[in-house]
Amino acid sequence: MAGSVKYKIATLGSHSALQILKGAKDEGFSTICICTPDRVSLYNRFNFIDKILEISTFSDFPKIENKLIKEKAIAIPHGSFVAYLGVENNKKMKVPYFGNKRVLDWESDRLKQRQWMEKAGVPVPKKFASGDKIDRPVIVKSYGAAGGQGYFFAKNKTEFKTKIKNFKAKNYIIQEYVIGVPLYVHFFYSPISKELEILSMDKRYETNVDSLGRIPSQNQQGLGIEPSFVVVGNSPLTLRESLLSEAFQMGERVVATSKKIIKGGLWGPFCLETIITPEQKFSIIEISCRIVAGTNLFIDGSSYSTLYWNKPVSTGRRIAMEIKEAIKRGALSKILN
Amino acid sequence: MAGSVKYKIATLGSHSALQILKGAKDEGFSTICICTPDRVSLYNRFNFIDKILEISTFSDFPKIENKLIKEKAIAIPHGSFVAYLGVENNKKMKVPYFGNKRVLDWESDRLKQRQWMEKAGVPVPKKFASGDKIDRPVIVKSYGAAGGQGYFFAKNKTEFKTKIKNFKAKNYIIQEYVIGVPLYVHFFYSPISKELEILSMDKRYETNVDSLGRIPSQNQQGLGIEPSFVVVGNSPLTLRESLLSEAFQMGERVVATSKKIIKGGLWGPFCLETIITPEQKFSIIEISCRIVAGTNLFIDGSSYSTLYWNKPVSTGRRIAMEIKEAIKRGALSKILN
Amino acid sequence: MAGSVKYKIATLGSHSALQILKGAKDEGFSTICICTPDRVSLYNRFNFIDKILEISTFSDFPKIENKLIKEKAIAIPHGSFVAYLGVENNKKMKVPYFGNKRVLDWESDRLKQRQWMEKAGVPVPKKFASGDKIDRPVIVKSYGAAGGQGYFFAKNKTEFKTKIKNFKAKNYIIQEYVIGVPLYVHFFYSPISKELEILSMDKRYETNVDSLGRIPSQNQQGLGIEPSFVVVGNSPLTLRESLLSEAFQMGERVVATSKKIIKGGLWGPFCLETIITPEQKFSIIEISCRIVAGTNLFIDGSSYSTLYWNKPVSTGRRIAMEIKEAIKRGALSKILN
Repeated sequence: MAGSVKYKIATLGSHSALQILKGAKDEGFSTICICTPDRVSLYNRFNFIDKILEISTFSDFPKIENKLIKEKAIAIPHGSFVAYLGVENNKKMKVPYFGNKRVLDWESDRLKQRQWMEKAGVPVPKKFASGDKIDRPVIVKSYGAAGGQGYFFAKNKTEFKTKIKNFKAKNYIIQEYVIGVPLYVHFFYSPISKELEILSMDKRYETNVDSLGRIPSQNQQGLGIEPSFVVVGNSPLTLRESLLSEAFQMGERVVATSKKIIKGGLWGPFCLETIITPEQKFSIIEISCRIVAGTNLFIDGSSYSTLYWNKPVSTGRRIAMEIKEAIKRGALSKILN
Repeated sequence: MAGSVKYKIATLGSHSALQILKGAKDEGFSTICICTPDRVSLYNRFNFIDKILEISTFSDFPKIENKLIKEKAIAIPHGSFVAYLGVENNKKMKVPYFGNKRVLDWESDRLKQRQWMEKAGVPVPKKFASGDKIDRPVIVKSYGAAGGQGYFFAKNKTEFKTKIKNFKAKNYIIQEYVIGVPLYVHFFYSPISKELEILSMDKRYETNVDSLGRIPSQNQQGLGIEPSFVVVGNSPLTLRESLLSEAFQMGERVVATSKKIIKGGLWGPFCLETIITPEQKFSIIEISCRIVAGTNLFIDGSSYSTLYWNKPVSTGRRIAMEIKEAIKRGALSKILN
Repeated sequence: MAGSVKYKIATLGSHSALQILKGAKDEGFSTICICTPDRVSLYNRFNFIDKILEISTFSDFPKIENKLIKEKAIAIPHGSFVAYLGVENNKKMKVPYFGNKRVLDWESDRLKQRQWMEKAGVPVPKKFASGDKIDRPVIVKSYGAAGGQGYFFAKNKTEFKTKIKNFKAKNYIIQEYVIGVPLYVHFFYSPISKELEILSMDKRYETNVDSLGRIPSQNQQGLGIEPSFVVVGNSPLTLRESLLSEAFQMGERVVATSKKIIKGGLWGPFCLETIITPEQKFSIIEISCRIVAGTNLFIDGSSYSTLYWNKPVSTGRRIAMEIKEAIKRGALSKILN
C-alpha cells in the first residue's frame, strides 16, 4: 500500500468477521477484531487477526471508537452491526465506515425497501394492504429484519386471522407466498470503477424447514411440527446462465435507483434475496445492503469471482481490494463515511 | 501454442459459455462469444471474452459462419446449441465443431438413447410399452429433451390416464419412477489419451420441486401445488468413494459401446444423470453428450479434477486443454468435425 | 522431508483413500493403496498413487503387513478400516497406525460413546431406557455404527413396538428424535501443536430420505415409501459464525475428556455429527474418531481450512502435514501406535 498512512481494517467479531479480516490480511492490511469476552477464544485462533479489542457488550462499541480512530481503522459493517448496535448507533459511528450510512434507513424499513424495489422496476411479490384482502397463501413479516425470525406463513385469510393473534410484531407486511426456489445473489458495486459484479450465490440453511423434506408426509402429521426459518448456515448454488443477464440487470436497476432516492446511492456488497418460480421469473423478497453470511461459503473463492480475478476473491477480500484501490487513487472519501 | 495458425475458441452466449471461454483464455486461446442483442451486456462484462459477435436471433448462426471460419474459430457446443439451432443445423455446421456430430441423432431421440444404454449394459429404469402395462409409479417424458420440461409424474395407471390427456408431446416414454436421490456425473473422454476422467458432480436445482420439502405436508395440501421440474441452477455433490468405481465403469461402457454403434464414438464431455437407490444401485435416467450446466459450479476447479491436474480445471478448461494438446500433436482432425 | 528414513503413506482403497493419498503426495510422501481386485482399475487412474498392493479380500490385510512395514508405511485409517477389518483387527495391526487405537473401543460402542459425550458436557439427545418410557418421536439405532444403516424412526411408543419386531439388532439405543437440521463438523486435533482446527463441514446425502422432499405430500401417500438413510454422498455447508465458537468448544471438551478417560486421548481428524434446532442449539448425534467421507468435498481446500493455511488443505493433506511435522521434530511416537 502506497502512502504514509497505514490504514487498518476492523470489524465486530461475528457474522462474517473471519472472511472480512482474512480478505483484508490477504490484501496487506493489518486487522482488528472487536468482540465480547465469550468470543475472544474463537478469534484468537486465527493468525490473520492482528489485534483483538475486547468489549463487555457490543453496545459498548462507542467507548472504543477513539481508540479505533487512533489506529486508523476502517470499520466494515456486516449483519451484526445493525442487530447489535441498532440503526441509530450505526449512523452515529465516528470511525470511518465502509458503505453509505444513508442506505440504512431505507433498508431497515420494509415499506421503504419495497418502495425502492418498486421504483427500480424489479419484480416483487404481491402485497396485501390488510388481512381482509388475502386471497392466496401469504407470508407475514415484521418490519424489522431479524436474521430469519419474525415470519409466519398462512395458507389463507382464516389461517392468517388465527396466527396474527400470537404474532409479537405490531408492524408487519403481508406478502404473497411465492412458490419457487430461493436463491441469494451476492453483488458488489464499485463506486470507483462504476462496475457491478456478481461474486457468488447461495441458499440459506434454515432450521427446521430444511429438515422437513426428510420426514415422510405420513410421519410429519403425527409430529405436529410448526415450521421455523432460523438461519444456521448456508449452502452453495450456481444459477442457470440464461438467467444471469436478468440477475445483473436487477442489481443495476437497484443501484441506479438508489442514486436517485438516497444521496450517494448504494455501494459495496449487497444481496438480492430472490425466489425463482417455475416460469423462470425472479421475485425479490428482500435486499441486504451489506455483506451477507452466505458469502462465508466462498472464503477461498467462487465460480463467479474467478471470472473477474485471477486469485481467490471472497466478498470480504473484494471490500479490502476496493479500499486499497481508493487509497491508491486518493479517493477514500468516495467509499467511506 | 506452437504452430503458425492461431485458433480461437467460440461458443454461443448461453448455458456454459462463461466457463468455456474462461477456460479457453486460461489455456491461452483468443475467445469469441456469439450472442443475441439482449445478452451483449452480460458477456461484455468479462475480460476473458475477446470478441462478441452479435446476431439478431440464434437461428441466424449460419450467417456468421464464414466469419468464424476466417477467424480460425473452433466451436464448442453446449446445451443451447441443440435447443436454439436444432439437431439438423448442428449437423450442417461448417465451423470446426468439437465433439462427434454423429452422436446427436442418438442423444436427441429417447428411444435410441435407451438402446445405447441397454447395449452398454448400464442400469436403466424399467420401461412400459404402453399406459396399460403400468404397475407402479412412473415418470412420463417427451422424446425431445428440453432442460427439465416435458415431464410428468403418475402414481399409477389411473393417474397416468388422466394426466396424459393434457400432455402436449405425442411421442413419449413411460419409465418406472425410481425412488432414490439424483446425482449427475460429469465425465470427459479424451480421444487423444484414450482416458476417461470424472471432473465433477452435481444435482439440479429445480423449481418448484426443490421448494416442496420446506413446506410442511399439512400446508402443502391446502396449496394444491402441481410439482414442476424446471432447472434454474445446480448444487455441488460428492459421491461415496465405494460407488466411484462403478461410476467410472458405467462411463467406460457407454464410451466403448458408442464406438461400436456410432462412427468415431463419443468424445469430450458428457454427463450421466443417475438416481441412486437405497440399495446403492445406480439407475441412468439420461445421457447428455456435451458439457452440462452443472459444471458451472466448478469454474474454479473441483474436488475431482484436482485429482488429475495441478491447477483449477473446469470442464470448459479441460476442453481447451484437449484442443491445445491436439494442436501440439497435429491431431485436430481427431477431435473436430 | 529431512532424515534418512523415507516414510510412505498407505491406506485401504475405499472411503477417502483418494483424498488421503493425494494429500500425502502433495506433502511429498510416496503413497501406497491396498485394495481388492475390483478396485484396482479405479486407483490405477491416479498418478499420485505410487503403488497398489492387491489383496483378495480386505480381511487378508494381515498377510501384507510385513511388506508394509518393510516399505516404512504409515497406515491412515478411515471409515472402511473398522467396517472391513473389524475393531479387533484394527487394534492388532502391526503397521504404524495414525491415531489412537484405544479410542476404537469407545467409539464403536454407542453406550460408551454416550458416556464420553455426557462426561464432556456436550449436548446429546434425551435417551430412553426402554420402549415403555417413550413419550415423543424417537430414533432407534443399533449399537454398531454402519454408515447410515441400522436405524429406524418411530413417532411414538405404539409405532416403536410395531417396528422393533422387525429390527435385526438386539442391542440398540432409543433416542429422542431431535427436529432440526443436520450439520457435520470436521475437526483436526494436533497432538504436536495442541491445537484444534475446524477444517470443513458438510451434510450427508442420503437415499431415499433426501428425495422425499421433492415428492408432493399427496403423491407420497400413494407410494407407501419407507424412509431409508443410506449415505451415498455429501454436500457442503457453512455454519453461522455466531455458532462457530460453540462448535470449537464442543470439540475441545470432547478432546479434553478423551485425555481423561482414554490413555493418550483422541488425536487427528474426528467429526461431530450434530442436529441444530430452531433454538440454535446443537445436539450431538454421534462422534466419528477418524476422517469422515464428507471431507471428500474439500480435496481442493475449503472455506475453513483456508483460514489456517495458505494452500488448499483437505483433511487428508492435514494428516500428511502432521506426520511431516512429527518426523521433523522426531516425535512420530506421539502420533502413531
